[in-house]
This record gives sequence, C-alpha cells and structure tokens, in this order.
Amino acid sequence: MNLKYRGKTKDVYELENGHYLLKFKDDVTGEDGVFDPGANTVGLQIAGAGRAGLKLTKHFFEVLQEQEIPTHYVDARLDEAEMIVKPAVVFGDGLEVICRYKATGSFMKRYGKYAVEGQDLGGFVEVTLKDDERQDPPISADALDVLGILSLTEYAQLKALTKQIGDVVKEELLNREIELYDIKLEFGKTETGEIMLIDEISGGNMRAYKDGVYIEPLELERLMNEA
Amino acid sequence: MNLKYRGKTKDVYELENGHYLLKFKDDVTGEDGVFDPGANTVGLQIAGAGRAGLKLTKHFFEVLQEQEIPTHYVDARLDEAEMIVKPAVVFGDGLEVICRYKATGSFMKRYGKYAVEGQDLGGFVEVTLKDDERQDPPISADALDVLGILSLTEYAQLKALTKQIGDVVKEELLNREIELYDIKLEFGKTETGEIMLIDEISGGNMRAYKDGVYIEPLELERLMNEA
Repeated sequence: MNLKYRGKTKDVYELENGHYLLKFKDDVTGEDGVFDPGANTVGLQIAGAGRAGLKLTKHFFEVLQEQEIPTHYVDARLDEAEMIVKPAVVFGDGLEVICRYKATGSFMKRYGKYAVEGQDLGGFVEVTLKDDERQDPPISADALDVLGILSLTEYAQLKALTKQIGDVVKEELLNREIELYDIKLEFGKTETGEIMLIDEISGGNMRAYKDGVYIEPLELERLMNEA
Repeated sequence: MNLKYRGKTKDVYELENGHYLLKFKDDVTGEDGVFDPGANTVGLQIAGAGRAGLKLTKHFFEVLQEQEIPTHYVDARLDEAEMIVKPAVVFGDGLEVICRYKATGSFMKRYGKYAVEGQDLGGFVEVTLKDDERQDPPISADALDVLGILSLTEYAQLKALTKQIGDVVKEELLNREIELYDIKLEFGKTETGEIMLIDEISGGNMRAYKDGVYIEPLELERLMNEA
C-alpha cells in the first residue's frame, strides 16, 4: 500500500483494490499543548486518541449506512486504528459544511451583532472553504456556483444531506442526554458523481454540551463509546 | 427640519411632510488623507465632492424611476447638495448588497484561492452585514433568514433587484466605454413592506475601469457627469 497523503490527524494510503486506508493517529490539533479541534496545527499527542475517534466514526457511519445515507465508509479495524473507504473527489480543495443547532464559535464571531450565544439555529447549514491562509472564509451557494466549485443543484443536495446527517448525530447524542450545538462535515463525489459524506465523525467534528457545560472532544468520545 | 443622523458622508434630516432630506457633504471616506470608498473613517474633505456624488446619484435614480425599479428617491436639489427621499426601514442594522461583474477587492481577499483578479463573475450577488467591529462579514441567504434579518422570499427579491440595478449602471457606464467591476447597494422597506433601493449611487459605490485602468470615484463622477 502507498502513502498518498500525510494529514494532521490521519494518514491516507492507497490500496491495491482501489479503496483507501485511513490511519487514525494519536496526534490531535491544537496550539501550545492545548487541544483545539478547530486549530490548523498539531498541538499534542494523546495515547488512544486515534482509536477513540475511529470507534465513534465507525459507529456513526454504520448508523448512516443503515439509513442508506451515502458515505465513503467500507469497513473499520479498531485495533489497527484503520478505516477503509471508497475513493472520493473533493469539491475544489475541500469544503467544510457546518450544521448549526445552537449559535457558538465562528458563527458568533461573525454574526454576534444579531445572535446570542446558545441561540437556537434549527440545523442551519453553512459552508466554508478550507483555506488556512484566508482563515477558512464562509461562502454562499451562489459564490460556490460562480467559482465552479459546486453547482446550485449539488449545493441543494449537500445541504439536505448535511441536515439529515446532523439530525442523526443529534439524535444519537440526545440518547445520552448530550446536546449537539454544531457539527462540521466533509463531502466528496464518487467517480459517478454521487455526493457522499467523507472523512470522519468524531469528537473533534462537533461541539456538544451536557447540562449546559461544554464537553471536550475526548470526553465526548469516551461518553459516546461506552457500551 | 430635524437632524436625525450625522453620517460619514451625508447628514439625514426629517422633514415635516414625512420625507427625509439627505445632505451630501464634501467629506469623503479614507485613511491618512487617501480616498478609499471602502474605508469606515472620514479621511479628507474635497470641495464639490458632495454635489458631484449627488449629481450622479440623481441621474441613476431617475433612470431607475423611468424603468419602474422601486427606490426611495423623490427629488434632488443639486445646488444645495440635497436629496429628498421616502422613509425606509433598513434590514437589521443595515446590509450591503454587492453585484460583481469582475473579481476584485474583498471577493479576491476571500476567494483568491479559486479566482483570478478581473475574472468574469456575471453579476453574481452577495450580501455583507454592516458591522465595522466584525469587518462587515459576508452572510448567506440562510443565515439572514435564521437571524430574522431577511426572509428567503425577501432575499430572492433583493437579489433580483440588485442584478437589475447593477445591469442598468453597467449599461450606463458602458455608454462611456467604462467597465463596471462591482457595485455596492443598500436596500430598505417602505412602510407597506415593499423592498426599494435606498442611499446613493455615486462613484464611491462602485469600482470602474477604463482601458484596463481603475478610475478613482471622483474621476468617475467627473466622466459620468459630463454633459
């Protein structure tokens, strides 16, 4: 198997049968030794972090599979911290698609003049470009269209899928009395042009609260991964 | 008549008949004595700038009136640098609606990874919040809707009007062999909820080029105001 890409928290290998292998690492993003899922740099290593993230990802992708929501998921080997996935073509150099149930984070930074922290947003969907240099700018459906990154039809599909997946995760968390504030997803296309969820769904992808208190990603994975 | 608001480039007075009077000033926005229409501070005074801006505004609003495009325009007195307008309710604390024909300025700052300077954008419309503190963030139709600033129906109307007005201005400039790159508009609602163009349409609202060279707002007004 060939190493295709060395990522911040995962390495990507190409397999001989055309699938890809994602190797989850114990590196977590952050700055100055403090874990921050939104950071663009690796801040520290936490033993078992890769496997915990994969375990939760496996769970969510299998729930989505049952509901026939298209994803790149094929299989996962927890002991090896490896996930097997289908090949995907990303949109442009990658988009982040965010489903927001409660106002927090970058939404407040941008729209704090009109919103209060924790305000209900009803699963509102927004897209940002993956562009570290330009601080991941938000982008509208029309701008994605004019730049040839995503057609308006694809945007509508992406938005509907995001809301559907967000609602599944929200429901799963609610079963453990945890409240989902927002979740960040990535999408790609199959070779035949079908839009599917890619990457992972772990603690670092979402902000969750219990009894009004924010739950750190690793603690969230611990709570969700409990039998 | 009562002073209602002292603006950076215009003062607003309430008239007894319910109309408002906009007094165009010779103050222009900029920094350190350099004219910059996008700046949030008054940089310098230029004799006659108010009247030149009003003359062009009057021209455009009268062209729009002929085409039955709703605006707040009632009348203008060039000698007094005064424009009479209908009362308007703005959306939130004010939006800027931008129609882009060629990529430049903040569009390039945000989306420069996917665009080249001067690239054709075909009259693409985007909205930013007027919020100096948060650097006038771009905002999507869905975000405007979820924050109660603008409904999706109002957004569609606003977008259609913006394109219509942008095309009128583009055409007018083209008659003088000037190319419109982008234009920034403001909208409000009448008491009965009809969306209309408000504020002004002067050199400072747009970026224009002649033979590939950027034309300063005051020079643009001079070129356009020539008999």
